[in-house]
Amino acid sequence: MIENDKTKTDTGVLEETPLLDQVTYPEDLRKLKPDQLRQFCDELRSEVINTVSVTGGHLGAGLGVVELTAAIHYVFNTPRDRLVWDVGHQCYPHKIITGRRDRIRTLRKGGGLSGFTKRAESDYDPFGAAHSSTSISAALGFATANKLADQPGKAIAVIGDGAMSAGMAYEAMNNAEAAGNRLVVILNDNDMSIAPPVGGLSGYLARLISSSEYLGLRSLASKMTQKISRRVHKGLSKAESHTKGMVTGGTFFEELGFYYVGPIDGHNLDHLIPVLENVRDAEEGPILIHVVTEKGKGYSFAEESADKYHGVAKFDVITGKQDKGKGGGPPAYQNVFGETLAKLADNDPKICAITAAMPSGTGVDKFAKAHPDRAFDVGIAEQHGVTFAAGLAAQGMKPFAAIYSTFLQRAYDQVVHDVAIQNLPVRFAIDRAGLVGADGCTHAGSFDITYLATLPNMVVMAPSDEAELVHMTYTAAEYNDGPIAFRYPRGAGTGVPLPEVPEKLEIGKGRIVREGKKVAILSLGARLTEALKAADTLDAKGLSTSVADLRFAKPLDEELITKMLTSHDVCITVEEAAVGGLGAHVLTMASDAGLIDAGLKLRTMRLPDAFQDQDAPDKQYDEAGLNAEHMVETVLKALRHNSAGVDGAELDDTADDEACAQA
Amino acid sequence: MIENDKTKTDTGVLEETPLLDQVTYPEDLRKLKPDQLRQFCDELRSEVINTVSVTGGHLGAGLGVVELTAAIHYVFNTPRDRLVWDVGHQCYPHKIITGRRDRIRTLRKGGGLSGFTKRAESDYDPFGAAHSSTSISAALGFATANKLADQPGKAIAVIGDGAMSAGMAYEAMNNAEAAGNRLVVILNDNDMSIAPPVGGLSGYLARLISSSEYLGLRSLASKMTQKISRRVHKGLSKAESHTKGMVTGGTFFEELGFYYVGPIDGHNLDHLIPVLENVRDAEEGPILIHVVTEKGKGYSFAEESADKYHGVAKFDVITGKQDKGKGGGPPAYQNVFGETLAKLADNDPKICAITAAMPSGTGVDKFAKAHPDRAFDVGIAEQHGVTFAAGLAAQGMKPFAAIYSTFLQRAYDQVVHDVAIQNLPVRFAIDRAGLVGADGCTHAGSFDITYLATLPNMVVMAPSDEAELVHMTYTAAEYNDGPIAFRYPRGAGTGVPLPEVPEKLEIGKGRIVREGKKVAILSLGARLTEALKAADTLDAKGLSTSVADLRFAKPLDEELITKMLTSHDVCITVEEAAVGGLGAHVLTMASDAGLIDAGLKLRTMRLPDAFQDQDAPDKQYDEAGLNAEHMVETVLKALRHNSAGVDGAELDDTADDEACAQA
Repeated sequence: MIENDKTKTDTGVLEETPLLDQVTYPEDLRKLKPDQLRQFCDELRSEVINTVSVTGGHLGAGLGVVELTAAIHYVFNTPRDRLVWDVGHQCYPHKIITGRRDRIRTLRKGGGLSGFTKRAESDYDPFGAAHSSTSISAALGFATANKLADQPGKAIAVIGDGAMSAGMAYEAMNNAEAAGNRLVVILNDNDMSIAPPVGGLSGYLARLISSSEYLGLRSLASKMTQKISRRVHKGLSKAESHTKGMVTGGTFFEELGFYYVGPIDGHNLDHLIPVLENVRDAEEGPILIHVVTEKGKGYSFAEESADKYHGVAKFDVITGKQDKGKGGGPPAYQNVFGETLAKLADNDPKICAITAAMPSGTGVDKFAKAHPDRAFDVGIAEQHGVTFAAGLAAQGMKPFAAIYSTFLQRAYDQVVHDVAIQNLPVRFAIDRAGLVGADGCTHAGSFDITYLATLPNMVVMAPSDEAELVHMTYTAAEYNDGPIAFRYPRGAGTGVPLPEVPEKLEIGKGRIVREGKKVAILSLGARLTEALKAADTLDAKGLSTSVADLRFAKPLDEELITKMLTSHDVCITVEEAAVGGLGAHVLTMASDAGLIDAGLKLRTMRLPDAFQDQDAPDKQYDEAGLNAEHMVETVLKALRHNSAGVDGAELDDTADDEACAQA
Repeated sequence: MIENDKTKTDTGVLEETPLLDQVTYPEDLRKLKPDQLRQFCDELRSEVINTVSVTGGHLGAGLGVVELTAAIHYVFNTPRDRLVWDVGHQCYPHKIITGRRDRIRTLRKGGGLSGFTKRAESDYDPFGAAHSSTSISAALGFATANKLADQPGKAIAVIGDGAMSAGMAYEAMNNAEAAGNRLVVILNDNDMSIAPPVGGLSGYLARLISSSEYLGLRSLASKMTQKISRRVHKGLSKAESHTKGMVTGGTFFEELGFYYVGPIDGHNLDHLIPVLENVRDAEEGPILIHVVTEKGKGYSFAEESADKYHGVAKFDVITGKQDKGKGGGPPAYQNVFGETLAKLADNDPKICAITAAMPSGTGVDKFAKAHPDRAFDVGIAEQHGVTFAAGLAAQGMKPFAAIYSTFLQRAYDQVVHDVAIQNLPVRFAIDRAGLVGADGCTHAGSFDITYLATLPNMVVMAPSDEAELVHMTYTAAEYNDGPIAFRYPRGAGTGVPLPEVPEKLEIGKGRIVREGKKVAILSLGARLTEALKAADTLDAKGLSTSVADLRFAKPLDEELITKMLTSHDVCITVEEAAVGGLGAHVLTMASDAGLIDAGLKLRTMRLPDAFQDQDAPDKQYDEAGLNAEHMVETVLKALRHNSAGVDGAELDDTADDEACAQA
């Protein structure tokens, strides 16, 4: 809990923030006296709590690094010294004291501040993030560039213990030695990422902390000085210092070439400030500081919650109660997947599930509850997760790798090299496909259809609603001929009834949802609802419209598609994905078959060629031009477009039939 | 050198192989007495040398693991126990004693044995490879599947020290503890991958070896038994055993949850066999055995060579001389790139180059020689390499990330998340694009156009010859507005003169190479030579043919393409890449613009929807249907295809003009 309680409410949240009010930028912070920092941090923490109570977002992580944020900016010369927050979801306190307090209540809203660090927002965000474990690599880039240019400036990466489970962080540490004292890595160890971290490293960090009392200030400073100066003062080689071992532990990091300092209490400014000052002035490096923090620190409801208020809706500061809406709506896709898979596994001992540190986000928690021995959380380790699944499949299991679309990009080579080339039946349950709302472009699942459907042997499906997701989960379980993927949106389904008995879909076969004569909409995935709305509008305009739910991006239902293309005046494809996916495959098929030779009014509707910022998902789809009205417009425009390549006059509602007949 | 010299030639290669002749499968090997194994290994080594002398291929790695291969198969119950070779280029001795000796001289040839492990070839290859660092993940999959099914069977991963620099191996080790004694990892430490390994871990392994004498057999066995049994015998917790440290070092691996055994001499069968037997029978695990081997062991020319004969052409066994052809042909693309970049960097201090353990394969060695401070070999760490480049770019440098097409798949998320979203000017120099010959489908660069051109902000180029590569390298250096990629083939260029002064190409602009009237070939990349041949043939048939070298897959030269599409009777696109790339983008553009509405004879030629096995590159392209004759066929077939969607009668040579006129 917060120590200073002069103006506290019962919750520990301060009502007034006089010191914070003096600080717009870190240069203002540096004017404070050291003994004012405790009060400053209490105020900053209160501002974070108050902000997230009205915006929602990531709370626990930011609360855990309030002191660390203030201390880093107080000691280092940001923005010249480059501060890189790993993932970036802990950056709200950082944003507040780097010129963005006036906009902090726009966090994660359309047109507002990003919920992550972002280069376009501020010089104090030298490297954007959102995916984990990139910070050390980026910081090493900054440090190296400064070294090459012989210009001043250090680089500081702040990375959580969960993010350390990713191979990328290890690769960067393995390369860090060359950066010397320009690189500082701060390991923010709160024994939590989103879920508790897994694996050998996690156990190691716990042993480091449990095996040593936190160091007192005096002993810490002296040991650190002794350690960092050892090579210089005693003339020992680095190799010798390694084999002799270090006083305070941390050999894992020392073996990779770091000087290790810690563990230290990340909420104790009397320890943080002098340690950071010493590290700033050290002549040797790179240095890793092991800081122990508590996620959700200083807000009792967060501290006491199992997930430390990792990601929250708007909430009441006094009661801690989150505004999670009324509930009772359609189930989330992730839960439909997890529950369906758990049920299938009751009768199929070969089914197992893999998640990369996202047990609840993927619904694998539901599976794990029913079948704990067959659920594997590999940590933030998508590469390993996919090839581990390939190994399971090669030994006869039925693995479901449940990974968000955007994070599956982390394991693309494993999908190609270990799964597709070997034609192993790994099932990819790909959540967060398409646009995802408040998390913005870094979390959008835009490219999966393109990067998967280009692969030989791969089957790619997308359900149009949660009932279809049940069928596809079952279809994937039953399909044993090679890899199969199904991708579905973030959030709630459409509310259709869930089937009692799942249906095994025929591979490469779509379904006609609505029969018409003049216009055909070929839809893949959850835009089907909008496609049906568009069909209603077109029908009302006299343009009788067919709608197909293609189900498969690969293999294409060539028979159905050919029939649609050849029996309608205009056809459009619709997908929640970027160029190169369904539309491109339909066009390629039509070209291969010569269907375009005689003329074909075929248009492909897809995500735009731009990274879209955060907003409400329906607004994002509006901006993307993928709502019903855009489908109608696209059809009408295609009809107006005559053979000479010129768009005709504007159609008015009464003239549709004639326009159509002319086309 | 080989110890037994009874029937040696001067080179150490045996002329007769009586013991090896008795062994077709490992079960035969297990019938030999322990004291016959030395002789057996000498014979096996000789067979490897003789084989590679006539096939070419990977020699040094296989020679280094002859004893290890024999010892593993002798001690473990393969194929029930699953043996996973990392990368797989060291598997020639393994293939020889697992039923494939009769075909071993077909290695890497069309229709022959793969140069890597391959599931389709043998039950003794439970998991195929070719890319590095996948073995521990796959082995963990096998071990876990066996554990879940409660069936016998261990999994053994053999992984090199170079492969340990990849994050994926670390992710797998971090997850290995759950496998218990079913998982054995053998670290084959030869202080070499293709180039010497880099980074902190490499130094750590060197210290482990230098700080302890190799253990004698007696002390090794007793210490190992003591260590592995410690938890059981003394009732110590695993955590305690960690903090107390291990007798023989290896804390890095122990911190990740392994029992560490080693280092031991990997050529000494008297040590290898009992250690493997103990590990096989251990009740605790997972165990990592640190084996020290010498790449190229036992063949003097390989031992003395700097690269240990990593990959060789055919050679003379007696002289060691490789048959590298006459020389004097066109320079390899990789060297044109490396030399061009080195020259540009003479006048531009911001240019730097990054390679992931492929300094000579990418030509970065040429750059490094001229500018050692600006060349970075990050080890087998593509993820880190790309984000490190992004950090360099964010601090104002001009980084060139030189990575093979197939390996860039390893860093796809970093390309998306760290480079493209932030629009940072990282230059991707992508070698080995398209089909690559003897290395087969695992090394083919088939998907890069598709997975890159779908990304907003990305520029994608492909040079048609080595002179164009010079221009594109320069264009990339000068382009500072965002990421830019250029992809080019493996091997020698076409022999065109290299420009004295490189030209800065206009972004998104192609060039017309040849003007015609009836047929247009839109070519991207090095198929241009074949396209020009096809044009000659078509011209001779009376079909006047234009050829464009598009240069850019993204952004497309819409003006040029529109002109070509609208002014010719038939158009084809040609690319050395899979579906979703250039052809798909041209079709999408034509559809967006309504160019297909009135009919368009447009065909896209691309790699087939299949993983193609190794063969000579021209044969692979023939199989892929991308040579000149296939272009001619595609054009003629399109011309015959009438508006009713039916192919017309076969054209004969004299009737071409009429046929064309009818089309």
